[in-house]
Amino acid sequence: MPGKESSMPKDDVACRAEMVERLINGDVRTAARLITMAENGLADMNGFMKQIYPHTGKGLVIGITGPGGAGKSSLVDQLIGKYRKLGRKVGVVAVDPSSPFSGGALLGDRIRFKRHSVDEGVYVRSVAARGHLGGLAKATTDVVKIMEAMGNHVVMVETLGVGQDEIDVMHVAQTCLLVLTPGMGDEIQAMKSGIMEIADIIVLNKFDLEGAEVCLRNLEATLGHRVYTERSQWLPRVVPTIASGIRDQTITGIDDLVHAIEAHQAYLDKSGDKKKILEKRIEHELTLILKNEVEKLCSAGLCSAGKKQYYINAIIEKEMDPYTAVQQVLAFLAGTERTE
Amino acid sequence: MPGKESSMPKDDVACRAEMVERLINGDVRTAARLITMAENGLADMNGFMKQIYPHTGKGLVIGITGPGGAGKSSLVDQLIGKYRKLGRKVGVVAVDPSSPFSGGALLGDRIRFKRHSVDEGVYVRSVAARGHLGGLAKATTDVVKIMEAMGNHVVMVETLGVGQDEIDVMHVAQTCLLVLTPGMGDEIQAMKSGIMEIADIIVLNKFDLEGAEVCLRNLEATLGHRVYTERSQWLPRVVPTIASGIRDQTITGIDDLVHAIEAHQAYLDKSGDKKKILEKRIEHELTLILKNEVEKLCSAGLCSAGKKQYYINAIIEKEMDPYTAVQQVLAFLAGTERTE
Repeated sequence: MPGKESSMPKDDVACRAEMVERLINGDVRTAARLITMAENGLADMNGFMKQIYPHTGKGLVIGITGPGGAGKSSLVDQLIGKYRKLGRKVGVVAVDPSSPFSGGALLGDRIRFKRHSVDEGVYVRSVAARGHLGGLAKATTDVVKIMEAMGNHVVMVETLGVGQDEIDVMHVAQTCLLVLTPGMGDEIQAMKSGIMEIADIIVLNKFDLEGAEVCLRNLEATLGHRVYTERSQWLPRVVPTIASGIRDQTITGIDDLVHAIEAHQAYLDKSGDKKKILEKRIEHELTLILKNEVEKLCSAGLCSAGKKQYYINAIIEKEMDPYTAVQQVLAFLAGTERTE
Repeated sequence: MPGKESSMPKDDVACRAEMVERLINGDVRTAARLITMAENGLADMNGFMKQIYPHTGKGLVIGITGPGGAGKSSLVDQLIGKYRKLGRKVGVVAVDPSSPFSGGALLGDRIRFKRHSVDEGVYVRSVAARGHLGGLAKATTDVVKIMEAMGNHVVMVETLGVGQDEIDVMHVAQTCLLVLTPGMGDEIQAMKSGIMEIADIIVLNKFDLEGAEVCLRNLEATLGHRVYTERSQWLPRVVPTIASGIRDQTITGIDDLVHAIEAHQAYLDKSGDKKKILEKRIEHELTLILKNEVEKLCSAGLCSAGKKQYYINAIIEKEMDPYTAVQQVLAFLAGTERTE
């Protein structure tokens, strides 16, 4: 790859540096272009990311996950309002899942942020899952970095928390919110799954619903039994909220949530867990980038020289089994790497 | 890998051949052991799969997907009953999704199959998503093959259809059922997604619900506009069913569904699309196995010799960016392959 870069026309290198420069100066059009490139998994994306990377890591990245209908978007909308009042620039990355049955009109949700759409300090983008496995997590991580590099003080990443891909996305965040609602039984499902392990703050939204108090006590009791998360010794706390209401009169708990996020950040700074989380994040980044690169190599290995059809025919004719075919492709890939 | 196999103790090779032999003779304990090994992504699994592979491809593999609450398990239960009456041995692979919010008590559903649990001609197993990305699809494909090799005439794979992984699973099937219910709006979500492309038969379950007729007409009208699926020129048909009811009196449409599955199979045989579907399936298999192998290599590459911590530290100290680190790991992997 470094060879590839040096063989790139001078104009392209200059053009790339210029684009990154414009991004760092907060140019929205450049950001939009780079995000689309990241989303499409452009071959040369890592070339850009290398230059963008030194300008990242300064913002506060908040991950927001939870089931459809928990009110994540309303919550994000309220948080945008709070952070804007504090004078912070805010970026929002909304991950559209690849699932057909995720429930809830995702594009409809996006419209809810509309009241911030004339605010130049707010930049919202959806990222869709495209192409191969793992592509979503890699693309989203790239988009978060682009959002950071363009000068957003706060970047929120919203996902449905469905599937490993979306849980992987959460590792890009410093503080992870898990949004639940009373009486949906989601808290039990969440307990059983990996997502609870990465939640720093549990938001019990729609706290005006029946059974909210009981649900809150249950959640707190359960959390009391657990001392550590995977990421830190921070004891997750539950924050009850009501993130939407008629004429915004009933909206409550958003300040508490902002304080909880601050408390978590302060804890990380004081305890030294910040470095631990950074290490975890980099580990995840490395794995994501590596998987992505290797998948590209795999497709290349399978697609080159009509090899795929050759193997398919051999397997149909029972001359070979797919496991042996894969061994041969791997040997071929190793050979390719050698001659480069 | 072939080198690895020949350096294996003779006893292990003999033991492996013996296990595969017992599987082919329909031994349930051996099947259970192999399935657990597949689920855990055992390092040597492909060694077993190579020997199992020649004994696969004879059964009818039916994929069943659809949102939680559509009644997939009741439908599978009814289909088990029908196929047992026809004297066929039936295997069921129920994929438990990695999602914490999939809705519905999955284990509770399993209990519904209980009435078949004393029937030796029925074998039901859940497969959980473990470990890394893509592992679920690879494990499930292995389990389906094990179920085929043990002599099941019909193997049903049930998934929630959430995420790319589970859609990938469907490619193992010859006939794919998409289960929807009236009035959930799922048909619209399904239309927009890739899952519609692989559905050969759409089951409109809970046909006693309000709006069922309208939903049926809408579905049929939409399908009328589409001539081909990705897999075949077969025009998908809609089958209305009621798969559960008090004392089984209201259960309807199951015979129609069995006939629709037969019609699809007959079409495949006659039209030559069977080969097309087989090619697609093998292509998917190759990709899954390759990805899985490569991921193992990646972890090995990152984990070896404390390399991971070295890169993490270098990135934290801003001496390196993760993209450069990945280039180095790839070069290292290529080098490892060379010396083997």
